[in-house]
Formats: sequence, structure tokens, C-alpha cells
Amino acid sequence: MSKPSTNARPGGRSARVRAAVHRAVTELLAEAPAEALTLPVIADRAGVHPTTLYRRWGSTADLLADVATSRFSGDLVVPDTGSLRDDLKRWTTDVATDLTDPDGLALMRAAVGSGAGASRACMADRHAQLAAILDRERARGGTAPEVEWAADALLGPLMYRAVFTNNSLEPGWVDDLVESFLA
Amino acid sequence: MSKPSTNARPGGRSARVRAAVHRAVTELLAEAPAEALTLPVIADRAGVHPTTLYRRWGSTADLLADVATSRFSGDLVVPDTGSLRDDLKRWTTDVATDLTDPDGLALMRAAVGSGAGASRACMADRHAQLAAILDRERARGGTAPEVEWAADALLGPLMYRAVFTNNSLEPGWVDDLVESFLA
Repeated sequence: MSKPSTNARPGGRSARVRAAVHRAVTELLAEAPAEALTLPVIADRAGVHPTTLYRRWGSTADLLADVATSRFSGDLVVPDTGSLRDDLKRWTTDVATDLTDPDGLALMRAAVGSGAGASRACMADRHAQLAAILDRERARGGTAPEVEWAADALLGPLMYRAVFTNNSLEPGWVDDLVESFLA
Repeated sequence: MSKPSTNARPGGRSARVRAAVHRAVTELLAEAPAEALTLPVIADRAGVHPTTLYRRWGSTADLLADVATSRFSGDLVVPDTGSLRDDLKRWTTDVATDLTDPDGLALMRAAVGSGAGASRACMADRHAQLAAILDRERARGGTAPEVEWAADALLGPLMYRAVFTNNSLEPGWVDDLVESFLA
């Protein structure tokens, strides 16, 4: 993962460099396959000295993990409809919609290609959101499946379709996924 | 995908070049992240002129699709136990076991990173095997779910766990996956 920055004031130089580098990664991934994504190429695009990138992130994999954490965290609102079924349907629909963003999918592909750390970074917040939905149902006095089982049954098909197939993630299919999981 | 070779006699020069190039890809992926995998680097390792690789495969993505097709086709026996439940349990167990091979997983990561074509190449034969198992159940007079639904429910969690998490794919979990799918 990315090294914690010791001088990262919001709006400070450190934050500006990080923003420029993250933007460069997104731009480059939209233009060319991930194989062209090296720290010198990213530094050049971001207008930052390569040494800065090596010192701050160490490797493309660590930088991709940082970009993936930013991109796939806090971007979805955890729904609170009062019903587990509806919460899960809204949330899986939001995840599915997010997976139709080509830039996000290109980042996810690059993260998977760069190794286990960056791959997990794509899913950390999704997993936490799912856990929050299930915990809330328990707090309401309901019963809810274990989060790992829910992740397998919901994130599994969503990620499989998005990454490995050209099947679409249409709304009817997403609803069926949740119904089948709760059956 | 790879261009069909017009002079590919088994044991001929074309087949030898292909074998050397495929071996070079596997070796390089075992040594370094996929970002280092470019056609010149692969050509150097395979002892083949880079022009040969550009002419035959065009891009790293096309070469990875070819290597993935070789690696993930014909490697698993489609079981025929006489029961859909047992066929699916054996097959998902074999897929799960195959995903514990670090070289295979590194190739799959690189394929996903290189784009949609190579990603689908990893799954084409798995999908065909699953369809064969379901078709056989129907031929026996039984009923079987649609193959896309089966792929979502079985390949989905398997690929998700292997690629995006560090959860293991233990035998008990694989059996539960099949039971839950058939319930």
C-alpha cells in the first residue's frame, strides 16, 4: 500500500502532487493498456520528478493500490431503506452501475494485473459497505448472512461478469442475484 | 486473439517458436509484475527476434490471450459421475485447485490487466465445460439451470476469491457453493 505521507496538509504541495499523479494514472489508463504504465511514464504525465514517485509509492503496484483505494472508497452511499432486501438491491445496483464506468474498469484491470495488494484495494470499501448493510439488519433484530458468504454471492458474480465476460449487468439480473441470495 | 499460423506443422519451426514464447511468458510472469511484460522483453527471453512476435501476435494482449487459451483449455477433465451435483462438485473442486497454482494465477492477473480479450480467453473453456455438464444432465432427462446463471454462481465466487481477496478456496466452501446453487 502507499506510504503514509508525513507532510500531507490538504491543499499543500504533497496533496497537489498526489492529485496530479492520480489524474495521470487515470488519463494514461484511458489511453493505453496497463503494460505501458510505469512510474517514469506516470511521472512525466503528472509533471513530477520520477524520484518523487519512487520515494512516495515505491512501485506501480503500490501506486495503483493507492489510486484504487481513492477511486473505490466513499463513492457509494450505503443505503438505509429499513429492509435488508431493498438495501442489498440498491447497493448491488450501484456497484453494477459503477462497473459500467470504463475508466473505473480500466483501473480495476490494471490493479488486478499489478498484484494481490492493489486488487484487494479495489474491494476493501465494497466489502465494508456490505458488512455495514448486514450489521444494520442484525441491529434491527433481523438475521443476516455472514459477510464473506454475501461477498461471494453478490460481489463474485458482479466482478466476474465485469472482468471476465462481456455479459451486461442489467437491472433485472442484479435483482435476481439478490433474490437468489436471500432465498 | 492470435493470428492463425499458416505454416504451423507440429514439431515445425513455427510450433517451436510458439512453445519458446509461451514458456518465456510464464517464466517472466513468475519473476516480475506484469508491467515488465513487453514483446521485446519476451522475445529476448524466448531467443526469438522481436519482429517475429509483432508479426505473429501483434501485441502483448494478443499474446497473453493465446497463452491463456493454451493454459486454461483442455487442462481439466469434464467429470461424468451420473449426477449433476457430483459432476459440479468435482468440477468446481478442480477449478479451485487449479487456482492455487501461482503461475496460472499470475497469468490470469496479467490477462485481466491486458484487457477484455485476454480475460475472456481465461474463461472460454471453463464456460464450455460447465455447459457440457449441464447439457449432459438434460440429456439424462434431468433439469439443469441455464449456463450463464451457473457461471455467475460458481465461477463468480471462485474468480472473485482468487483474484480480489486472500480468502482460501477450501473444499468445504466449494461444496457449499454447489449445494447453495442447486438448492
